Amino acid sequence: MAEFNDQTTLTKSEIEAGDIFAPRFDNNGLILAVTCDAQTNEVLMAAYMNEQAISLTLETGFVHYFSRSRQSLWKKGESSGELQQLVEMRTDCDQDILQILALQTGTGAACHTGRKSCLYRKVVVENGKAKLADLGMQPLFDPKDVYNK
Amino acid sequence: MAEFNDQTTLTKSEIEAGDIFAPRFDNNGLILAVTCDAQTNEVLMAAYMNEQAISLTLETGFVHYFSRSRQSLWKKGESSGELQQLVEMRTDCDQDILQILALQTGTGAACHTGRKSCLYRKVVVENGKAKLADLGMQPLFDPKDVYNK
Repeated sequence: MAEFNDQTTLTKSEIEAGDIFAPRFDNNGLILAVTCDAQTNEVLMAAYMNEQAISLTLETGFVHYFSRSRQSLWKKGESSGELQQLVEMRTDCDQDILQILALQTGTGAACHTGRKSCLYRKVVVENGKAKLADLGMQPLFDPKDVYNK
Repeated sequence: MAEFNDQTTLTKSEIEAGDIFAPRFDNNGLILAVTCDAQTNEVLMAAYMNEQAISLTLETGFVHYFSRSRQSLWKKGESSGELQQLVEMRTDCDQDILQILALQTGTGAACHTGRKSCLYRKVVVENGKAKLADLGMQPLFDPKDVYNK
């Protein structure tokens, strides 16, 4: 796939209203992708993509990210079997974020903890202090079985 | 509100499984918040928060961000009237992103272009080149009327 357009050569109007895809990568060449269940809109996870991950996602129909901790391309589900099938890729007004609408395959768990979504806790304030409360999302697989093979 | 916990003093297990809220801020003290319609789950926008924005959002029930371009706290809707009422704040497994579930007040437009959502374009591939296609989301207000008063 051809390289993406360089956002710095475009006007605000071209970025916001045009049909030119010019993702705004950060200093590390990464852009955040928020991945949602294509059927329910539910946010499943957020992770970074580089140019190669975007291209491979579009070309193969399976979602690829760039792992910051491993500093390498990461085909989602390659170890766990929890592949994500691309339905649609969107970008926002200033093109500094991507949204991925996907079908979560495998057991249906996008999170490495085995839950459907990484967003399994909410913030609650008690006595003026913020803490987390579990939303009760049950694990669909046991991470020990999946990652320690 | 008390300061948030320092993630660097916690174990992976405490970050992922506990009730300790310890958002992982970047080098600029910011964390990305993905804001969704609390009724439909639809992603409306993404923007950054600093500690103060998180605290004010929790304390006041109205969503605050930190504007990177203006380098200042930003109460969403202060100029446009499009305030966001907080329903729930969530965080993900490694606490490096926030999800805000909100009720979009005003005309119902989260985007400065007047559309309900900032994600109004999808990526399509034509002849091996990625470009954007408008999803047909109609503006709910005219930005010229709202921001050039």
